[in-house]
Amino acid sequence: MTAHEYSHPERILLNSGQSLPDIRVAYHTFGELNADKSNVVLICHPLTADSNPLNWWGAIVGPNKAIDTNRYFVLCSNVLGGCYGTTGPSSINPKTGTPYGLSFPIITIRDMVTVQRHLCDHLGIERIHMVIGGSMGGMQALEWVAQCPDRVHACVSIAATSQVSPLAIAFDSVGRHAILNDLVTHTSGPSSGLAIARQLGHITYLSEEALEAKFSRQLQDADAFQYHMAPEFQVESYLSYQGNKFVNRFDPYAYLYLTKAISYFDLAHHYGSIEAALGPSHASFLIMAIRSDWLYTSKQSKTLVYELMKQNKHVSFVEIDSDYGHDTFLIDSDETRAVIHGFLDSL
Amino acid sequence: MTAHEYSHPERILLNSGQSLPDIRVAYHTFGELNADKSNVVLICHPLTADSNPLNWWGAIVGPNKAIDTNRYFVLCSNVLGGCYGTTGPSSINPKTGTPYGLSFPIITIRDMVTVQRHLCDHLGIERIHMVIGGSMGGMQALEWVAQCPDRVHACVSIAATSQVSPLAIAFDSVGRHAILNDLVTHTSGPSSGLAIARQLGHITYLSEEALEAKFSRQLQDADAFQYHMAPEFQVESYLSYQGNKFVNRFDPYAYLYLTKAISYFDLAHHYGSIEAALGPSHASFLIMAIRSDWLYTSKQSKTLVYELMKQNKHVSFVEIDSDYGHDTFLIDSDETRAVIHGFLDSL
Repeated sequence: MTAHEYSHPERILLNSGQSLPDIRVAYHTFGELNADKSNVVLICHPLTADSNPLNWWGAIVGPNKAIDTNRYFVLCSNVLGGCYGTTGPSSINPKTGTPYGLSFPIITIRDMVTVQRHLCDHLGIERIHMVIGGSMGGMQALEWVAQCPDRVHACVSIAATSQVSPLAIAFDSVGRHAILNDLVTHTSGPSSGLAIARQLGHITYLSEEALEAKFSRQLQDADAFQYHMAPEFQVESYLSYQGNKFVNRFDPYAYLYLTKAISYFDLAHHYGSIEAALGPSHASFLIMAIRSDWLYTSKQSKTLVYELMKQNKHVSFVEIDSDYGHDTFLIDSDETRAVIHGFLDSL
Repeated sequence: MTAHEYSHPERILLNSGQSLPDIRVAYHTFGELNADKSNVVLICHPLTADSNPLNWWGAIVGPNKAIDTNRYFVLCSNVLGGCYGTTGPSSINPKTGTPYGLSFPIITIRDMVTVQRHLCDHLGIERIHMVIGGSMGGMQALEWVAQCPDRVHACVSIAATSQVSPLAIAFDSVGRHAILNDLVTHTSGPSSGLAIARQLGHITYLSEEALEAKFSRQLQDADAFQYHMAPEFQVESYLSYQGNKFVNRFDPYAYLYLTKAISYFDLAHHYGSIEAALGPSHASFLIMAIRSDWLYTSKQSKTLVYELMKQNKHVSFVEIDSDYGHDTFLIDSDETRAVIHGFLDSL
């Protein structure tokens, strides 16, 4: 992977009607762009990841992997609103010389894709051989097809949805509430709202079965209950650990803005109908769901597949038979690898 | 309902090994205790309720209701650790003259029942005709049978479990984390950790289907997205409202201690096995689960029923076919009323 940066020379008009100047995009590339630029695999990252898929999807991306960088030119950029190099709420507002913070405009999944589109234009890439992503990345992959029906040859959306459910909105809303409290109380660190939001996120990333298998009611440090207010169960320690670790690597403002973008995501709403959104495209689709995912459920994926089939699209559907929940898409598994490899090979 | 108070004259030894002096118990009674004191229905309240079932279970309790106060002497007390009259963390510590706060000893469901047992002794009630409760109240009902196998004639446990799952522990743990942060930051009111914990609780009280039916992706105040950071979806406004309302009526310390008691609850662990816990009793059981309850699942209830049947107990099992989730047990429904009435009549 090679790290790059691109500065977009013009203001970008956002979904909200506001606009942003001086957008910088951090991106990574891997492999060689072929002569006719027909071997581009665009990877869209999930909520808290960065533009280097080797950091979080090394099982899928690399030489001789499912997405084989000996054959494909892999491109991945940090999303607009993020905190890993692309312009986001912690970037400096050129007008004030200080970070945007909550004055950063609200962004949507559509805006993320708009920025990626400008990056592709800059790189002279007209056609995307395959756009792929999991979770929030899977939403971007679908949005790519909707926004640029003629530019995408194939779309892989994993553990995602075309319409974020009230349950997912509810969880993200509580997480944002916890973070917004910090702006009042100026808390940061392990006790912060960001840690709480992350703990909450982790509950939704694991299934009930996974929590049972991974932790059950095991205690952390003792054979018997200690009868104190601190965490005693392993599942509590796990969540505390994940929360504390996260505050050292992620920006609370970015978390606010990215989860807000997720809550808005609803292709049918944005384009009038799911048919209006995806109908114009001739892309092949692979929709992958995880049986035990209760954040973006298999049922939601099936609804999308049904819509795509009604529209006479080329669509493959795979439900990964995993107990592990939403996060299964990030885990190295023979099945996930084989399915992505097979789909890419078949194109 | 008549409100009463009882002061226990002796220290009570707790599950933790600590003890508490001067325990006061707020309780309500309704109806007449008959001559041989054989018509006692003991109601155990859920997490945030009080000792007056008419405030929260008026559909079930009253003259000519499922629990008919013309026939039965209904007794309900606020739990130990609560904030509606019974000794809890916001009570004055007689040793210091100031509220206990976090110096209050950790309590368990067993301790709640121990206090209720002392209250019954004080009232001269030896046999409980039926002990009944939902959610945390259902746990107390089971604990009553385990702690006093000879005193309980019938036990009704609704939307509860004999063993709290890691998923439920995880949610309560995040809620406590949010509340404990307030002790560092001295936040209170609508932005407090208690509001966040309550929002989180409300997510677990509703099913995915209920959230879909009740809110879907409806917006609160507008036809179109407003693109600001404040809540826009109805589900967000609902949760904010519930959180804000709750901080005016509940004590954050009580929430910490009561949810901790729930997390510990595991009859098999406390008594060595579920057989050791419930085997000695000759009580009749009614286990009621709610199909769409994902906090204390129908599957968990079935596991308990299976154990009870293996032990050759009289056990009835009803799964309420409701989409509404955990909170179904608090809602007026013909089915719930009929099942409780039928069971009570059959005793």
